[in-house]
Amino acid sequence: MASEFDIIRDYFKRPMTGALLGIGDDAALLAVKPGTELALSTDTLVSGRHFFADADPYQLGYKSLAVNLSDMAAMGAKPRWTLLALTLPEELASPDTSWLAEFSKGFFTLADRYRVELIGGDTTAGPLNIGVQIIGEVPAGQALRRSGAQPGDDIWVSGKLGDAALALKHELQQITLTSEEIAQCLPSLLMPEARVELGRRLTGLAHSAIDISDGLVADLGHILAASEKAASIDITDIPCSAVLKKYWQQKFATDCLLAGGDDYELCFTAAEINRREIEALSAELAVPLTRIGKIHSGAGLIVKDAQGHAMTLEITGYDHFNT
Amino acid sequence: MASEFDIIRDYFKRPMTGALLGIGDDAALLAVKPGTELALSTDTLVSGRHFFADADPYQLGYKSLAVNLSDMAAMGAKPRWTLLALTLPEELASPDTSWLAEFSKGFFTLADRYRVELIGGDTTAGPLNIGVQIIGEVPAGQALRRSGAQPGDDIWVSGKLGDAALALKHELQQITLTSEEIAQCLPSLLMPEARVELGRRLTGLAHSAIDISDGLVADLGHILAASEKAASIDITDIPCSAVLKKYWQQKFATDCLLAGGDDYELCFTAAEINRREIEALSAELAVPLTRIGKIHSGAGLIVKDAQGHAMTLEITGYDHFNT
Repeated sequence: MASEFDIIRDYFKRPMTGALLGIGDDAALLAVKPGTELALSTDTLVSGRHFFADADPYQLGYKSLAVNLSDMAAMGAKPRWTLLALTLPEELASPDTSWLAEFSKGFFTLADRYRVELIGGDTTAGPLNIGVQIIGEVPAGQALRRSGAQPGDDIWVSGKLGDAALALKHELQQITLTSEEIAQCLPSLLMPEARVELGRRLTGLAHSAIDISDGLVADLGHILAASEKAASIDITDIPCSAVLKKYWQQKFATDCLLAGGDDYELCFTAAEINRREIEALSAELAVPLTRIGKIHSGAGLIVKDAQGHAMTLEITGYDHFNT
Repeated sequence: MASEFDIIRDYFKRPMTGALLGIGDDAALLAVKPGTELALSTDTLVSGRHFFADADPYQLGYKSLAVNLSDMAAMGAKPRWTLLALTLPEELASPDTSWLAEFSKGFFTLADRYRVELIGGDTTAGPLNIGVQIIGEVPAGQALRRSGAQPGDDIWVSGKLGDAALALKHELQQITLTSEEIAQCLPSLLMPEARVELGRRLTGLAHSAIDISDGLVADLGHILAASEKAASIDITDIPCSAVLKKYWQQKFATDCLLAGGDDYELCFTAAEINRREIEALSAELAVPLTRIGKIHSGAGLIVKDAQGHAMTLEITGYDHFNT
């Protein structure tokens, strides 16, 4: 059996470049640039809830960092450092399996892409639980908060929504997709792309932002609650894949679109005057950005169907204690 | 069943005073004072490994923060902010139990004592797993590292060692203490005191420091490895309780003293010239500080018995994957 210290040395310890002190002391040490604020967040992935017990460890390592990067994207912060609290069944820590090698490879593949440094963590035995903390920098006063939406703002989303939820329904055998369809949807579920660069570029441009992890209705609802505003969106304007469009007439498709989390796209609001600049940003970054509705004063969210009628929403976002 | 959002609102969300933005957005926001560095650490407590499944939730909330505060103490940092990643079985999240009320009470009791602010976290369902991240401030260049031990340094420990391990052995029914003895030892195990003020006051005074979570031999060993130095200590100089002294002739007592973790005392090294200042600090803080040995050049740790002979150490520190 590998020891805790072997695991850290063999899979996770790397030379520091950005931090003053990394793995191997009682705490990591950072110096923060003047004029910047720190954004901090943590997201946990639990076996059997956020991923299947037999999930591919490379993809799991990748996704566990991706969902945290997405929180930095939603704040407009540049992700810089990460800590990893890994609770691991003893069989996965055994040198007989390649689980740790694959997990750390997936984790570092994404970390390296964004130059995010693993500066600390904790490794312990127990039921598989992956806790990642992320620390980012944002110019002082520039962070994208949920609370800044203004009446008249356009509501935008990045990418397309619903594919991750569609793939999950297939994996749970609630629906059956063709092998081609599932191949198209599965990457959104297993290896989502955090919109880090988009988030950073939206500082000073967007009034509010959130990442869509619980589903569009729930997450836009968080913006509305924090901003004390109302909104209306058009379901036909919400960007989705050809696969989802194919099943459009079935209720599960609109459920996936409105309430499917796990896509980790950004939902943000911005003044109409910034439309052209946002469209230029979309082209520059090659990230589709779509206007789906408007912010109003008042409270509540209206989703309009293809005929322009307000839909009755039975769906809410993902709640870990009500599933 | 309480929802994830109810849980956060009812038990964990409080007005922010020190952070720019706390619970309720995609990330928390901090401004860091010029001339300070940040110390960051994370410690996870897993049911059945770090605590019994039926552990008192108040004490668990208290201890889960205490072990993290101890990491700040070991760095000489002032703890400022914390994040809580709580994975919780559904039955403990039920409003029918007072588990969350008690857990949060224990957590905040200690947080309030040190003016530590809970600025974020994650709540999810699954096997009980308590992940705490702590962020502290330390004057630039002043952090106590493991790597600074110098030949000729005195080796000091705070408080007394071994009671937490003694209590654990009793709870595991490996030994039997009298009810009076267990009453004396149990607080060290269940509600350890982090030496936060001591750690801060040791900056500029100690050359190296660590908190004793894995056992004295293992943790002093970490200082020696990081500092590339050797040490000798006298077992009879190691401070311990009257309870432990009573069982001194039995092997389990010296095991508890040398390899018992969970006391969360500090072990630090300092130049001889600072002895008087350290003794004055001990008196001022009313924290016993005891010299137990010396740092030398070379490698390795010698523990001398009452006759001054080098002991053969079979024991090592706590390893989560070799227990």
